[in-house]
Amino acid sequence: MNREYTFSFGGNLSSVRIRKHIPSLDDIISFYGSAPGNVLFVCDTHTRSIARQILGEKDAPLCEIQSGEAAKNWASVETILKAAKDAALGRDGLFVGVGGGVVSDMTGFAASIYMRGAGLCLVSTSLLGMVDAAVGGKTGFDLFGMKNFAGTFYPAPLVYMPVSSLTSLPEREWKSGMAEIIKTATLDTSDEQERFWSLLAALSRDTAEQDILVECIARSVQLKGRVVEADPKETGNFRALLNLGHTFGHALESSIGLGQITHGEAVAWGMARSCDLGLALGITPQDRREKILALLSAFGYETKTPHPLMRDTEAFMQALRNDKKKKAGSLRFIVPARTGAVLVSGEQAEPRVLARIIGGYSDCL
Amino acid sequence: MNREYTFSFGGNLSSVRIRKHIPSLDDIISFYGSAPGNVLFVCDTHTRSIARQILGEKDAPLCEIQSGEAAKNWASVETILKAAKDAALGRDGLFVGVGGGVVSDMTGFAASIYMRGAGLCLVSTSLLGMVDAAVGGKTGFDLFGMKNFAGTFYPAPLVYMPVSSLTSLPEREWKSGMAEIIKTATLDTSDEQERFWSLLAALSRDTAEQDILVECIARSVQLKGRVVEADPKETGNFRALLNLGHTFGHALESSIGLGQITHGEAVAWGMARSCDLGLALGITPQDRREKILALLSAFGYETKTPHPLMRDTEAFMQALRNDKKKKAGSLRFIVPARTGAVLVSGEQAEPRVLARIIGGYSDCL
Repeated sequence: MNREYTFSFGGNLSSVRIRKHIPSLDDIISFYGSAPGNVLFVCDTHTRSIARQILGEKDAPLCEIQSGEAAKNWASVETILKAAKDAALGRDGLFVGVGGGVVSDMTGFAASIYMRGAGLCLVSTSLLGMVDAAVGGKTGFDLFGMKNFAGTFYPAPLVYMPVSSLTSLPEREWKSGMAEIIKTATLDTSDEQERFWSLLAALSRDTAEQDILVECIARSVQLKGRVVEADPKETGNFRALLNLGHTFGHALESSIGLGQITHGEAVAWGMARSCDLGLALGITPQDRREKILALLSAFGYETKTPHPLMRDTEAFMQALRNDKKKKAGSLRFIVPARTGAVLVSGEQAEPRVLARIIGGYSDCL
Repeated sequence: MNREYTFSFGGNLSSVRIRKHIPSLDDIISFYGSAPGNVLFVCDTHTRSIARQILGEKDAPLCEIQSGEAAKNWASVETILKAAKDAALGRDGLFVGVGGGVVSDMTGFAASIYMRGAGLCLVSTSLLGMVDAAVGGKTGFDLFGMKNFAGTFYPAPLVYMPVSSLTSLPEREWKSGMAEIIKTATLDTSDEQERFWSLLAALSRDTAEQDILVECIARSVQLKGRVVEADPKETGNFRALLNLGHTFGHALESSIGLGQITHGEAVAWGMARSCDLGLALGITPQDRREKILALLSAFGYETKTPHPLMRDTEAFMQALRNDKKKKAGSLRFIVPARTGAVLVSGEQAEPRVLARIIGGYSDCL
């Protein structure tokens, strides 16, 4: 089951270790060579016990932040920075984030600005964290009601993904992570794309198939890692492909209120809208749109529009216009193509077309 | 008078342009190729008029923060980020910071985390800003009463230094900047070190000598730039040399309350203590110590210990122990050698020796 991938993100090496069990403090220390007194653990309400297991008999300061999207704010960053200061961490100290995407993003951001950058290790304990936040170095938190409005690029040199922490995945946890895996599979243009899709179809029928799950996580990590290697800071157009479903999805999250639905639910719904847009633009073939929507539905995602929680389409359109992935003032969308996906500029997506897609007329497309 | 230096800081190019006059918006835009609508100016109370001059007939959003060290906090960062959001800047937008060290540090930090990193140009209008904050990419703000506790490395690709903005340097402004120039001259080990020192000695007698001043600024910029090129993120021991006077100086600032004295006054006093420590350790020759102290005094800096504002030496020692330049839990000091300066570990500086240096027994050394 053990897998290991090493990526180079803009010259910074990042090793990802998929393991059955959680690492020990010694595993982490032996990689960094830090003294234990120079380590701060960060966890949330749900992962405190995992952090304790990593520590075992040993002792290290432990900073607990609230769990969930609501904790992705400056106050939590300050809590982590204060804990590091109280633990007398120098700039050669090590932050170990134990948790899902929120803990990864927050610990990564705090480490990146602590004395202008300290050491960072992530132990990713959620499906979403493994296939998204823990790989590629994006950190950040929400501000002014906007997702990840402030952040840095700061890849962790060492990332552990202990699949034992996924053993009894609650439904909500599944729905937060699977959408990112389906998204990555949609981007896959390798010879393995059909096999990846078949694995996902099998998984949708029996989510207890742990070997298949590990295989899907490993493929997602590899694919995401290679994309980020090619375009680490999203200055080109390559990394932007990973935002498939995110432009629509983030606007949905922002407009109905952050934390109302999981990131995965938002991305899944956004992918469905990307399929609609791609179809309207003549880029996404009808049969591919149906295949993607069917898989999303098989995992229980809402794909219909308007989304049941969306009360105000104008707020949605405003959130869309504020999207941080804009270039030269224009929105950019990623839409599935015959294989993989392509980037289209906002000009191609006329407001009239977008309004129809969001307003619920997608079936007329 | 025009000078231009281009440095490569960890692969990021940074051009420094020393000019008689302030640049125009077109000068800046032509470098970046940004549309003016995509620019946010940041200034403080004192530099609003300079920002307006740069704009000329053109219009661009302008965000004013408070001036002085007291504004180096998260609230100011948030003010800048909010202004950028309200101006609808994308991540390809450009932040132009017009001001001294505080504006440079704050604008640089805000730009570095805005949507994970936007464009940055600095127009440095103070002596301290030119020779310190504007070159080398360190950004940051104060937190928990600690100087630059949070920050990033984010070099501005373009830095303007319009010396016309120094024309009527107020006394306090002088004292904030000259200490950094003297510090840099102390580090100089090139063939030009004697000449640099002579220029400074001449300047101390007639501060109206603008040609000499420009020459001193240019040498400081060059020397600092070369040091940062060799060790951009202070992972080695080379960039640490630029902290000469800063370990003692920052502890003084923190312990008497940030903003009580200028950064330059703190650094000058800290350099005097570094000379004391170097002498006690047998590293700084007596005649070099005297030469450095004499030049600091000629510019009106307080070099005696204990500093007149220091009420509580224990608070000072605590601030010293919290210094973020620690490595492996140990403090590090930079002390002048026969030429240049060297780094010594905290173990070499016994508490007993430090206490004597701070407590005012330095003359017995």
